[in-house]
Amino acid sequence: MAVNYVVPVKTELKPVAGIRLGTAEAHIRKPNRRDMLVLVLDEGAIAAGVFTQNRFCAAPVLLCREHLANTAKSRALVVNTGCANAGTGERGMADARATAAVLAAQLGCQAGEVLVFSTGVIMEHLPMPRLLAGLPHCVENLAADNWFEAAHAIMTTDTVPKAVSKQITLYNKTITITGIAKGAGMIEPNMATMLGFIATDACVAEDVLHGMVGNAAALSFNAITIDGDTSTNDSFVLIATHAAKHPVIVGEGTAEYGALQTAINEVAILLAQAIVRDGEGATKFMTIEVAGGKTREESMKVAKAIGNSPLVKTAFFASDPNLGRILAAVGYAGIKDLDPNKVSLYLGDVLVAEQGGRAASYMEADGIRIMKADEITIRVELNRGQELATAWTCDFSYDYVKINADYRS
Amino acid sequence: MAVNYVVPVKTELKPVAGIRLGTAEAHIRKPNRRDMLVLVLDEGAIAAGVFTQNRFCAAPVLLCREHLANTAKSRALVVNTGCANAGTGERGMADARATAAVLAAQLGCQAGEVLVFSTGVIMEHLPMPRLLAGLPHCVENLAADNWFEAAHAIMTTDTVPKAVSKQITLYNKTITITGIAKGAGMIEPNMATMLGFIATDACVAEDVLHGMVGNAAALSFNAITIDGDTSTNDSFVLIATHAAKHPVIVGEGTAEYGALQTAINEVAILLAQAIVRDGEGATKFMTIEVAGGKTREESMKVAKAIGNSPLVKTAFFASDPNLGRILAAVGYAGIKDLDPNKVSLYLGDVLVAEQGGRAASYMEADGIRIMKADEITIRVELNRGQELATAWTCDFSYDYVKINADYRS
Repeated sequence: MAVNYVVPVKTELKPVAGIRLGTAEAHIRKPNRRDMLVLVLDEGAIAAGVFTQNRFCAAPVLLCREHLANTAKSRALVVNTGCANAGTGERGMADARATAAVLAAQLGCQAGEVLVFSTGVIMEHLPMPRLLAGLPHCVENLAADNWFEAAHAIMTTDTVPKAVSKQITLYNKTITITGIAKGAGMIEPNMATMLGFIATDACVAEDVLHGMVGNAAALSFNAITIDGDTSTNDSFVLIATHAAKHPVIVGEGTAEYGALQTAINEVAILLAQAIVRDGEGATKFMTIEVAGGKTREESMKVAKAIGNSPLVKTAFFASDPNLGRILAAVGYAGIKDLDPNKVSLYLGDVLVAEQGGRAASYMEADGIRIMKADEITIRVELNRGQELATAWTCDFSYDYVKINADYRS
Repeated sequence: MAVNYVVPVKTELKPVAGIRLGTAEAHIRKPNRRDMLVLVLDEGAIAAGVFTQNRFCAAPVLLCREHLANTAKSRALVVNTGCANAGTGERGMADARATAAVLAAQLGCQAGEVLVFSTGVIMEHLPMPRLLAGLPHCVENLAADNWFEAAHAIMTTDTVPKAVSKQITLYNKTITITGIAKGAGMIEPNMATMLGFIATDACVAEDVLHGMVGNAAALSFNAITIDGDTSTNDSFVLIATHAAKHPVIVGEGTAEYGALQTAINEVAILLAQAIVRDGEGATKFMTIEVAGGKTREESMKVAKAIGNSPLVKTAFFASDPNLGRILAAVGYAGIKDLDPNKVSLYLGDVLVAEQGGRAASYMEADGIRIMKADEITIRVELNRGQELATAWTCDFSYDYVKINADYRS
């Protein structure tokens, strides 16, 4: 179902020294499916995260922010699907705290060293007895090579598990970066949460790790859009276990810093793209490159306006080169002093529009040819500056409506 | 097809003294349909307009802005459907100017006193020979009681014509306000333009008329959303013919000013609602009231975020009270210091959420009952200030995708 996404086999997902993972069928919402994950980190690991900007953010997001503000030292992450614990008020916070405390007691660490994540229906309370009963089951089957099972355990109604591994060499040691994510699939209409977890055994100072997670998010999870709905639970966490015991990366200037950031970005981008490829009802995968902005922010604004336009997305679903819709989206993206006469639009390698209108050389047959593919690049040149932004999105099909209009069940 | 919209009969649409209207079948895009309209205004009439904020705005929008900046005195409006004359560069501007000049010559007025409007496919040029040939046909059948025909002539693939008349008494004279509009129906996938024209025989000073059109737009056409796509051609023009010859309304403080502004607002709101009721694929009509904002702008921002959310709109299509989606939209609307614990959400008269979560009194059966209706009110209380905004939207159905994915034909 996912557009051009190949699910990795278990052996492709490399363990990260210092991390063990365990899963359970806790029947949070539905029986007979893995719906809980615990990651246990050896002492010495640190974590950094970025979280949803939604003001109605979920209780676990508030708790993660609180714990990470106190210490980057983390000993465990726990994830449940089926219930987002969002829009749940004070009781929701108490439930998230209780989850952290109970797992901490089982692992012999502090509650403040446990990060909690939930995804699923909004405005319902967690089934705490079943959730707490699931924790020891997760702990029982902890193993370093459980990343494949972990990717499955955080799926809600994603159609495929999403996981990526990459290895690089730092200080003559093999360093592993492995990540998993679950989608804004929202294929069950209530599942509205993006979760991403990437871990490495590299040794990185806290402030550097904090910068790295932000840099990677900007280029990956913050550059995708399915429908413009910002979830209450979006979370992306980067873990460095320090198990590789090479010299700690303490600043941004070094080759090692660059190599690690690049590898983390690559893993994050592949996971983010996997979420789009598995977007609800997606039949096409679109890359939107906007060049020539004065700032990266304004280039991204234009890319997101195109990627969020229902009119653009339905035209791509239909393979209809109704490309004036893209110009319209560029025009309303919010750049108040944009000169439309300087904008050029390309579809694949074909120049479609320039100088405020259709290019003289553009033939609709070329547009049709490119639109028929299931991977399409839209390129806009703003000609205002030097800054580039790339975003990814999928088309908007009958199935998007079907999936999101089906009653919760 | 339109949700609870009753098409007026011809005799309900009152002529406005000082205005005659004529239509033609010019075959701009398709044969055998009225696709051109000319409104001729007697000497003494003035006009004021508000236009799309899209930077890729159409040539006729640029020309209207230019003409209205020079003089409010207008002698004619000309509208074509089938081609938006947007994304057409310099040739598009020349075509719009030629249209104004040719009509002016036929009417014996200045080209600068003619306002030009187009709606239809973006990034295609006007078929100028057919368009210019249509002008004398329009002029031939000018009549004061042609508002019903005019409402038909500006339809693209709207399913119903949209027109409203209202009469009030000012200075012991009967004053008429009659308006027509066409939709963001976009039922043919390229028709992306909202046009609204309201005329009155009242006598209003230029600066007052300018304020009135802005006030009316804010409460009506700027308070609706079908899919968040801002067109390249949106135009709303208010005409005062001064034919009633009562004392000119020169300021905002008088009872007459208040009565006329209120009546114009009512006509504009009914037309704007008609556009939503006839929104592409619409099966439900939703009123979104957001109270307790610090400013009207922030209340409207929240209302629009709810009204534009595909997840909210598909839930309403399905009559699924998946109301956490509304909280999520409130949370991402962009009020950075919003306290979610102070927000209350009502569906109809039922309290759904308060204090950051589901209300203890809320029963899903009540939600289901209200969602089944085809007219639904969502009310959000932000509890930050005193400012209220009301927006209108429709649901998001299979037919939205079908309509917008069908190939242009």
